[in-house]
Amino acid sequence: MKSTNESPFSPEEITALRNDTEGCGQVIHLNNAGASLMPRGVTQSILDHIKLESQIGGYEASALRHDAIRQFYDVAGKLFNGKPANIAFTASATDSYTRALSAIPFRAGDIILTDTDDFISNQIQFLSCQKRFGVRIEHIRNSPGGGVDLDDLDHKLHTLQPRLLAITHVPTNSGLVQPVNAIGEIYGRYAQQHGDKTWYLLDACQSVGQMKLDVEVLKCDFLSVTGRKFLRGPRGTGFLYISDKALQQGLEPLFIDMRGAEWIEKDRYKPREDAMRFEDWEFAYALVLGTRMAIEYCLHLGEERIWQQVKLLSTYMRQELASLSSLRMLDRGPETCGLVTFTVAGSDPKYLVNELLKRKINVVPSFRNFAVIDFDEKKAAWAIRASPHYFNTKLEIDTFISALNEII
Amino acid sequence: MKSTNESPFSPEEITALRNDTEGCGQVIHLNNAGASLMPRGVTQSILDHIKLESQIGGYEASALRHDAIRQFYDVAGKLFNGKPANIAFTASATDSYTRALSAIPFRAGDIILTDTDDFISNQIQFLSCQKRFGVRIEHIRNSPGGGVDLDDLDHKLHTLQPRLLAITHVPTNSGLVQPVNAIGEIYGRYAQQHGDKTWYLLDACQSVGQMKLDVEVLKCDFLSVTGRKFLRGPRGTGFLYISDKALQQGLEPLFIDMRGAEWIEKDRYKPREDAMRFEDWEFAYALVLGTRMAIEYCLHLGEERIWQQVKLLSTYMRQELASLSSLRMLDRGPETCGLVTFTVAGSDPKYLVNELLKRKINVVPSFRNFAVIDFDEKKAAWAIRASPHYFNTKLEIDTFISALNEII
Repeated sequence: MKSTNESPFSPEEITALRNDTEGCGQVIHLNNAGASLMPRGVTQSILDHIKLESQIGGYEASALRHDAIRQFYDVAGKLFNGKPANIAFTASATDSYTRALSAIPFRAGDIILTDTDDFISNQIQFLSCQKRFGVRIEHIRNSPGGGVDLDDLDHKLHTLQPRLLAITHVPTNSGLVQPVNAIGEIYGRYAQQHGDKTWYLLDACQSVGQMKLDVEVLKCDFLSVTGRKFLRGPRGTGFLYISDKALQQGLEPLFIDMRGAEWIEKDRYKPREDAMRFEDWEFAYALVLGTRMAIEYCLHLGEERIWQQVKLLSTYMRQELASLSSLRMLDRGPETCGLVTFTVAGSDPKYLVNELLKRKINVVPSFRNFAVIDFDEKKAAWAIRASPHYFNTKLEIDTFISALNEII
Repeated sequence: MKSTNESPFSPEEITALRNDTEGCGQVIHLNNAGASLMPRGVTQSILDHIKLESQIGGYEASALRHDAIRQFYDVAGKLFNGKPANIAFTASATDSYTRALSAIPFRAGDIILTDTDDFISNQIQFLSCQKRFGVRIEHIRNSPGGGVDLDDLDHKLHTLQPRLLAITHVPTNSGLVQPVNAIGEIYGRYAQQHGDKTWYLLDACQSVGQMKLDVEVLKCDFLSVTGRKFLRGPRGTGFLYISDKALQQGLEPLFIDMRGAEWIEKDRYKPREDAMRFEDWEFAYALVLGTRMAIEYCLHLGEERIWQQVKLLSTYMRQELASLSSLRMLDRGPETCGLVTFTVAGSDPKYLVNELLKRKINVVPSFRNFAVIDFDEKKAAWAIRASPHYFNTKLEIDTFISALNEII
C-alpha cells in the first residue's frame, strides 16, 4: 500500500475516470455527500430501461431484464461481504432505515441507545417512537476528541440493555467517522451474553462508497445505505442489509406487503425467508439497474483505493482551508472522511454557496436544525460542507479555495 | 355527452395519441392496470432530468428545476379537486398507503373496518397491525351483486365506530368499482355525528387515471394512488392526498423525517403544516417530473372522456370474450371498469400469458393468494387480467381475442 500522500490512482486513471463522468467537464463537484455525479454507465443503464419500458411496457421490461435486476442483489451482497439473501432494495437511505426501525417491536419503557451525532431524521423518528410507543432515548457520551466514547457505550449497553442500538457511521454535517469496528466488537461481545435483547442498526448512508463496509466486522443487524452519494448511483435509491439472525428470529417490517409476505388465508400471512421480506412490491426498476451499475463501478475500482484517495483529497482540502483566516474548521473525531465542514465568521452561508454555484462549484450549507446537538456543542449556527470524491483533483480544490477566498 | 357506444375521441385523435406513445407501435398493451405505456412527453422528461443530474449534480439539478417540480403539486391537487398543500409525493401506491396507515394512532381494541375486495397488501398490513397493536379487523358484507353492501357499511360504522374505514376503489384482480360516492356520503354523515372517531383511507391505485377522483365527493381523509397504472406515469411513483382535517388535527406519519418536521431541540420536533409532512426528504426527482407530465396529459385529455373510452373498450372486450365457450368472466359489482378478468377451464394461466406475450400481446395472470377472499367466493384459482386503456383500439381487442381463441 502506498503512503497516504501518494495517490492510489495514476494521473491517466483519474483522467479516464473523469472522462467517464459527464459532469466533470461542466462543474467542480464537491457535493458528493449530497449526490455524486453518476458515471456514464449508470446514467445509460437508467435511460435504456426507461426507454424499454416505454416501448414494451413497465412489467414486461422488468420481466425481460429479470437476470440483470437479480444481479443487483449479488453485487450489493458482495459490497457488504454478505449474501444476496441479506439485501433489500428501497427508495432511499431513510426508507431503508425506517423499514428496519419499524421491525423492532418496541414496548413502553424500551430504550433506544444512540450517539449524539446521529442523523437528524433518525433522531426525529426516535422522538416519534417515544411519543407513539413510550420508548426512552438515551445518548452515548462523546469522547473529548469527538465520536462515541467506547467505555460509555460498553457501560450503557450492559446497564440499560436497550431494545435498539442506533449508530450513524458518518453524520451528514461533519467529517467525523465513528469507530464502528470497535463498536462492532463491543456490541458483538455484549450480544453473545444477552442474545436477542438488543438489535443494532447502523446508518451507513454517508460512508458507503467512501470506504469498505464489512458486516462480519461491523456485526450490525441492519445496515442502511443510499445509492446517490459516494456510491454514485441514482437519486431515489437505497438498500438495506438484514442479518441472518434478524431474519431467522422473525423480524418483519411493520408495513409488510405482498412482496414481503404471502397471503395464505383471510386472517393469516407468511413472511418470506429472505431479506426481500423488507421490500415493497413496486420499484423503479430503472433505478435498481442504475444502482447495480454504481455498485459494480465501486467494486471494480476497489473500496480501499477509493478510501485512500478520498482521505488524500479531503486532508489536502482541510489543510488548505485552514490557512484562510476567517474560517473555522468543524470536523472532529478519531478519524475524518470526505465530508469537510467549516463556518465563516460574519458571512452568510446561502450567499457563499450561491456565489460558488455561479462559478460552477458545487457545495452545500448545513444549518443548526440539521444536527442540533452537534451544532450547539460546536457553538456554530451553520456550516459549509464540501465533499470531494476520488475523481476530483487537487487543482479543483485549489480553484474552490481561491474562489472562496475571493468571495469572503 | 355522447352515448356509451360512441367514442368520445375521433379516429384522428386516437391515431395521434397512439403516435405519441412509442409502445403502441410495438405491442398490444392490455396491461394498463399493471403499468401503462408512458407517452413520449413523460419518458422525455425523465430522460432529460437524469441527463441533467449527470451533468451538473443531483441536488443542483433539482434546485434548477425547482419550479417545474413544484408544479407536480399543483397538477396533483387539481387532479383530485384539492389544493397543492394536500399532496405528498411517494415511491408507490403502497408507500402512500402505509404512510397514511402509519399516521393512525392505533390502540389495542381499535377496529379497522374494510371491504372484502380490499387490496392484498392492505389486508396483510392490517393483519400486521393486528399482531403489533392488537387492533381488530372487521369486513363490510358484500351485496349479492358484488361490491360493498351500503346498509351494512352504515350499520357497522355506527355500531363499531372503527378507528379506520379502509376501502379499495377498484381491486387489483377484478373489474369491480366500489360505489365510492355513496360510501363518501355515508361516511360524511357519520363523521358529522362522530367527529374524529374514524379516519377514512381510500386506495385509488387502480382507479386514478381511469376516472375522475374528486375529494369533495369522496370525502376521504386519505387518498392513495400510483403513477404507473392508468395515469401512464413512471414506475416507482405514487402520491397521497391528505385532508385539511387530518393535517389540522395533527396526524403525522410514524416515521416522519427531516422533510416532514423541523428538529427544534434535542427532544422536540415540529411537523410541517402542509401535506409534505408525509414526505421523505429524498426522491427520484426525474420521476416526480415524469409523474407531473403524466398528470398533465390526463388533465389535458379530460378524465370524463378517458373514462367513457375505457368503459367502451372494456365493455366491448367483455362482450367478445363471453362468446368464447371455455371462458368464465369474473367481474361483478354495480359498475365495472377497465380491468377485465376471466378464467379458462382446464388451462394454465402462465402458459396463456406467455403464448400471448410471444404474439406481443401484454396481459397478466392473477392468483388466489392475490385476493384470497374474492377468489374463494368466486371459486376460481386464477384469473387472466386484460386491461385496455383509451389508446387501445377495437382492432387490438379483436386480435387479442382471436389469439386467445387460437391458444386455448
